Amino acid sequence: MTIVVGYIPTPEGEASLVAAVEEARRRDEPLHVVNVRASDSSEDRRYLEEPEVERLTGRLAGMGVIFEVQQLVRGKEPAEEIVGAAERLKASLIVIGIRRRRPTGKLIFGSQAQRILLDSECPVLAVKPST
Amino acid sequence: MTIVVGYIPTPEGEASLVAAVEEARRRDEPLHVVNVRASDSSEDRRYLEEPEVERLTGRLAGMGVIFEVQQLVRGKEPAEEIVGAAERLKASLIVIGIRRRRPTGKLIFGSQAQRILLDSECPVLAVKPST
Repeated sequence: MTIVVGYIPTPEGEASLVAAVEEARRRDEPLHVVNVRASDSSEDRRYLEEPEVERLTGRLAGMGVIFEVQQLVRGKEPAEEIVGAAERLKASLIVIGIRRRRPTGKLIFGSQAQRILLDSECPVLAVKPST
Repeated sequence: MTIVVGYIPTPEGEASLVAAVEEARRRDEPLHVVNVRASDSSEDRRYLEEPEVERLTGRLAGMGVIFEVQQLVRGKEPAEEIVGAAERLKASLIVIGIRRRRPTGKLIFGSQAQRILLDSECPVLAVKPST
Protein backbone atom coordinates (compact mmCIF):
# COMPACT_ATOMS: atom_id res chain seq x y z
CA MET A 1 0.00 0.00 0.00
CA THR A 2 1.06 3.56 -0.71
CA ILE A 3 0.02 7.03 0.41
CA VAL A 4 -0.45 9.56 -2.38
CA VAL A 5 -0.09 13.27 -1.78
CA GLY A 6 -0.38 16.13 -4.25
CA TYR A 7 2.32 18.64 -3.45
CA ILE A 8 2.43 22.29 -4.46
CA PRO A 9 4.58 24.97 -2.82
CA THR A 10 1.77 26.72 -0.93
CA PRO A 11 0.67 26.62 2.73
CA GLU A 12 -1.96 24.03 1.73
CA GLY A 13 0.64 21.94 -0.07
CA GLU A 14 2.98 22.12 2.93
CA ALA A 15 0.21 21.06 5.30
CA SER A 16 -0.65 18.09 3.10
CA LEU A 17 3.00 17.01 2.85
CA VAL A 18 3.55 17.14 6.62
CA ALA A 19 0.33 15.18 7.24
CA ALA A 20 1.22 12.64 4.54
CA VAL A 21 4.65 12.01 6.07
CA GLU A 22 2.98 11.51 9.45
CA GLU A 23 0.53 9.00 7.94
CA ALA A 24 3.32 7.18 6.08
CA ARG A 25 5.16 6.73 9.38
CA ARG A 26 2.05 5.73 11.27
CA ARG A 27 1.02 3.17 8.65
CA ASP A 28 4.56 2.19 7.70
CA GLU A 29 3.81 2.73 4.03
CA PRO A 30 5.76 4.48 1.27
CA LEU A 31 4.85 7.98 0.13
CA HIS A 32 4.18 8.91 -3.49
CA VAL A 33 4.40 12.68 -4.00
CA VAL A 34 2.77 14.04 -7.16
CA ASN A 35 3.49 17.51 -8.50
CA VAL A 36 1.42 18.49 -11.52
CA ARG A 37 1.78 21.26 -14.06
CA ALA A 38 -1.77 22.35 -14.74
CA SER A 39 -2.94 22.13 -18.29
CA ASP A 40 -3.90 25.76 -18.53
CA SER A 41 -0.57 27.33 -17.70
CA SER A 42 2.97 26.90 -18.95
CA GLU A 43 4.43 29.12 -16.23
CA ASP A 44 2.77 27.47 -13.30
CA ARG A 45 4.40 28.43 -10.01
CA ARG A 46 2.89 25.38 -8.40
CA TYR A 47 5.08 23.24 -10.63
CA LEU A 48 8.47 22.71 -9.00
CA GLU A 49 11.69 23.76 -10.71
CA GLU A 50 14.74 21.53 -10.43
CA PRO A 51 16.24 23.19 -7.28
CA GLU A 52 12.85 22.99 -5.54
CA VAL A 53 12.59 19.30 -6.34
CA GLU A 54 16.05 18.78 -4.88
CA ARG A 55 15.08 20.66 -1.72
CA LEU A 56 11.91 18.61 -1.43
CA THR A 57 13.66 15.27 -1.87
CA GLY A 58 16.34 16.39 0.61
CA ARG A 59 13.67 17.21 3.19
CA LEU A 60 11.82 13.94 2.65
CA ALA A 61 15.08 11.95 2.84
CA GLY A 62 15.56 13.29 6.39
CA MET A 63 12.07 12.34 7.51
CA GLY A 64 12.46 8.59 7.74
CA VAL A 65 9.97 7.52 5.09
CA ILE A 66 10.32 5.69 1.80
CA PHE A 67 9.22 8.10 -0.89
CA GLU A 68 9.25 9.03 -4.55
CA VAL A 69 8.47 12.35 -6.21
CA GLN A 70 6.74 12.31 -9.58
CA GLN A 71 6.31 15.39 -11.74
CA LEU A 72 3.62 15.25 -14.37
CA VAL A 73 3.15 17.59 -17.31
CA ARG A 74 0.71 16.06 -19.70
CA GLY A 75 -2.24 18.32 -19.95
CA LYS A 76 -4.33 16.81 -17.21
CA GLU A 77 -5.81 18.51 -14.18
CA PRO A 78 -4.05 17.91 -10.83
CA ALA A 79 -7.13 16.13 -9.44
CA GLU A 80 -7.14 13.70 -12.34
CA GLU A 81 -3.42 12.95 -11.98
CA ILE A 82 -3.66 12.48 -8.21
CA VAL A 83 -6.67 10.17 -8.37
CA GLY A 84 -5.04 8.34 -11.31
CA ALA A 85 -1.82 7.79 -9.36
CA ALA A 86 -3.79 6.49 -6.37
CA GLU A 87 -5.62 4.00 -8.58
CA ARG A 88 -2.46 2.88 -10.36
CA LEU A 89 -0.66 2.32 -7.06
CA LYS A 90 -3.71 0.91 -5.27
CA ALA A 91 -3.12 3.58 -2.64
CA SER A 92 -4.50 3.25 0.86
CA LEU A 93 -4.95 7.01 1.21
CA ILE A 94 -4.79 10.34 -0.62
CA VAL A 95 -3.79 13.40 1.41
CA ILE A 96 -4.88 16.85 0.23
CA GLY A 97 -4.50 20.36 1.59
CA ILE A 98 -7.58 22.55 1.61
CA ARG A 99 -7.95 26.25 2.16
CA ARG A 100 -8.88 27.65 5.50
CA ARG A 101 -12.22 29.43 5.58
CA ARG A 102 -11.93 33.07 6.47
CA PRO A 103 -13.96 34.06 9.54
CA THR A 104 -16.09 36.35 7.43
CA GLY A 105 -15.85 34.23 4.32
CA LYS A 106 -18.51 32.35 2.52
CA LEU A 107 -18.21 28.72 1.45
CA ILE A 108 -15.33 28.36 -0.95
CA PHE A 109 -14.31 24.88 -1.84
CA GLY A 110 -11.49 24.30 -4.28
CA SER A 111 -12.59 22.52 -7.42
CA GLN A 112 -9.54 20.21 -7.43
CA ALA A 113 -10.13 19.20 -3.80
CA GLN A 114 -13.79 18.58 -4.55
CA ARG A 115 -12.98 16.41 -7.58
CA ILE A 116 -10.47 14.36 -5.60
CA LEU A 117 -12.98 13.82 -2.80
CA LEU A 118 -15.67 12.79 -5.27
CA ASP A 119 -13.59 10.67 -7.63
CA SER A 120 -11.19 8.90 -5.33
CA GLU A 121 -11.82 5.22 -4.69
CA CYS A 122 -9.66 5.30 -1.57
CA PRO A 123 -10.11 7.40 1.59
CA VAL A 124 -9.04 11.06 1.41
CA LEU A 125 -7.49 12.90 4.33
CA ALA A 126 -8.09 16.67 4.07
CA VAL A 127 -5.85 18.94 6.14
CA LYS A 128 -5.51 22.69 6.51
CA PRO A 129 -2.53 24.96 7.10
CA SER A 130 -2.16 25.87 10.78
CA THR A 131 -3.23 29.40 11.61
CA MET B 1 -6.68 13.02 21.62
CA THR B 2 -9.97 11.68 20.33
CA ILE B 3 -11.39 10.67 16.97
CA VAL B 4 -14.87 12.04 16.20
CA VAL B 5 -17.21 10.31 13.80
CA GLY B 6 -20.73 11.25 12.80
CA TYR B 7 -22.78 8.07 12.59
CA ILE B 8 -26.03 7.58 10.73
CA PRO B 9 -27.49 4.20 9.72
CA THR B 10 -26.70 4.44 6.00
CA PRO B 11 -23.94 2.90 3.84
CA GLU B 12 -21.99 6.15 4.21
CA GLY B 13 -22.43 6.11 7.99
CA GLU B 14 -21.30 2.48 8.14
CA ALA B 15 -18.21 3.24 6.06
CA SER B 16 -17.29 6.14 8.32
CA LEU B 17 -17.75 4.03 11.47
CA VAL B 18 -15.56 1.19 10.18
CA ALA B 19 -12.84 3.64 9.11
CA ALA B 20 -13.05 5.51 12.43
CA VAL B 21 -12.61 2.30 14.42
CA GLU B 22 -9.59 1.44 12.27
CA GLU B 23 -8.08 4.88 12.92
CA ALA B 24 -8.80 4.66 16.64
CA ARG B 25 -6.89 1.37 16.77
CA ARG B 26 -4.05 2.65 14.61
CA ARG B 27 -3.63 5.81 16.69
CA ASP B 28 -4.57 4.22 19.98
CA GLU B 29 -7.12 6.95 20.66
CA PRO B 30 -10.70 6.82 21.94
CA LEU B 31 -13.65 7.16 19.60
CA HIS B 32 -16.45 9.68 20.06
CA VAL B 33 -19.52 8.73 18.01
CA VAL B 34 -22.04 11.51 17.38
CA ASN B 35 -25.58 10.84 16.17
CA VAL B 36 -27.61 13.94 15.45
CA ARG B 37 -31.32 14.51 14.93
CA ALA B 38 -31.46 17.12 12.21
CA SER B 39 -33.27 20.30 13.02
CA ASP B 40 -35.71 20.02 10.17
CA SER B 41 -37.24 16.67 11.00
CA SER B 42 -38.75 15.12 14.08
CA GLU B 43 -39.01 11.70 12.46
CA ASP B 44 -35.46 11.46 11.24
CA ARG B 45 -34.51 7.92 10.33
CA ARG B 46 -30.89 8.84 10.66
CA TYR B 47 -31.45 9.37 14.37
CA LEU B 48 -31.03 6.10 16.23
CA GLU B 49 -33.79 4.60 18.33
CA GLU B 50 -32.91 2.93 21.61
CA PRO B 51 -32.48 -0.65 20.22
CA GLU B 52 -30.25 0.69 17.44
CA VAL B 53 -28.07 2.49 19.98
CA GLU B 54 -27.77 -0.75 21.92
CA ARG B 55 -26.78 -2.65 18.78
CA LEU B 56 -24.22 0.02 17.95
CA THR B 57 -22.65 0.05 21.40
CA GLY B 58 -22.62 -3.76 21.38
CA ARG B 59 -20.75 -3.79 18.07
CA LEU B 60 -18.26 -1.16 19.22
CA ALA B 61 -17.66 -2.99 22.50
CA GLY B 62 -16.49 -6.00 20.48
CA MET B 63 -14.07 -3.98 18.38
CA GLY B 64 -11.38 -3.31 20.95
CA VAL B 65 -11.60 0.48 21.13
CA ILE B 66 -12.52 2.89 23.89
CA PHE B 67 -15.66 4.69 22.74
CA GLU B 68 -18.68 6.74 23.68
CA VAL B 69 -21.88 7.37 21.76
CA GLN B 70 -23.52 10.78 22.06
CA GLN B 71 -26.97 11.56 20.68
CA LEU B 72 -27.80 15.19 20.11
CA VAL B 73 -31.20 16.73 19.52
CA ARG B 74 -30.97 20.46 19.91
CA GLY B 75 -31.88 22.01 16.62
CA LYS B 76 -28.43 22.19 15.13
CA GLU B 77 -27.23 20.77 11.83
CA PRO B 78 -25.17 17.56 11.98
CA ALA B 79 -22.12 19.36 10.56
CA GLU B 80 -22.26 21.96 13.33
CA GLU B 81 -22.59 19.32 16.05
CA ILE B 82 -19.76 17.19 14.65
CA VAL B 83 -17.35 20.12 14.25
CA GLY B 84 -18.41 21.40 17.69
CA ALA B 85 -17.71 18.03 19.32
CA ALA B 86 -14.30 17.89 17.65
CA GLU B 87 -13.42 21.35 18.98
CA ARG B 88 -14.70 20.57 22.47
CA LEU B 89 -12.69 17.35 22.63
CA LYS B 90 -9.66 18.79 20.81
CA ALA B 91 -10.03 15.88 18.42
CA SER B 92 -7.12 14.71 16.28
CA LEU B 93 -9.44 13.67 13.45
CA ILE B 94 -13.02 13.76 12.16
CA VAL B 95 -14.16 10.83 10.01
CA ILE B 96 -17.04 11.34 7.57
CA GLY B 97 -18.75 9.15 5.00
CA ILE B 98 -19.39 10.65 1.59
CA ARG B 99 -21.54 9.45 -1.26
CA ARG B 100 -20.07 7.55 -4.14
CA ARG B 101 -20.32 9.33 -7.47
CA ARG B 102 -22.39 7.48 -10.01
CA PRO B 103 -20.53 6.65 -13.24
CA THR B 104 -22.90 8.83 -15.21
CA GLY B 105 -23.51 11.27 -12.41
CA LYS B 106 -22.56 14.87 -12.13
CA LEU B 107 -20.79 16.39 -9.16
CA ILE B 108 -22.91 16.00 -6.09
CA PHE B 109 -21.32 16.91 -2.83
CA GLY B 110 -23.30 16.68 0.37
CA SER B 111 -23.75 20.01 2.10
CA GLN B 112 -23.01 18.55 5.55
CA ALA B 113 -19.76 16.94 4.32
CA GLN B 114 -18.76 20.19 2.67
CA ARG B 115 -19.42 22.20 5.82
CA ILE B 116 -17.43 19.78 7.96
CA LEU B 117 -14.49 19.91 5.53
CA LEU B 118 -14.57 23.70 5.46
CA ASP B 119 -15.20 24.39 9.14
CA SER B 120 -13.17 21.74 10.89
CA GLU B 121 -9.97 22.87 12.57
CA CYS B 122 -8.66 19.31 12.63
CA PRO B 123 -7.97 16.97 9.70
CA VAL B 124 -10.98 15.25 8.13
CA LEU B 125 -10.86 11.72 6.75
CA ALA B 126 -13.50 11.19 4.04
CA VAL B 127 -14.41 7.61 3.18
CA LYS B 128 -16.92 6.01 0.83
CA PRO B 129 -18.99 2.85 1.04
CA SER B 130 -17.37 -0.03 -0.82
CA THR B 131 -18.99 -0.89 -4.14
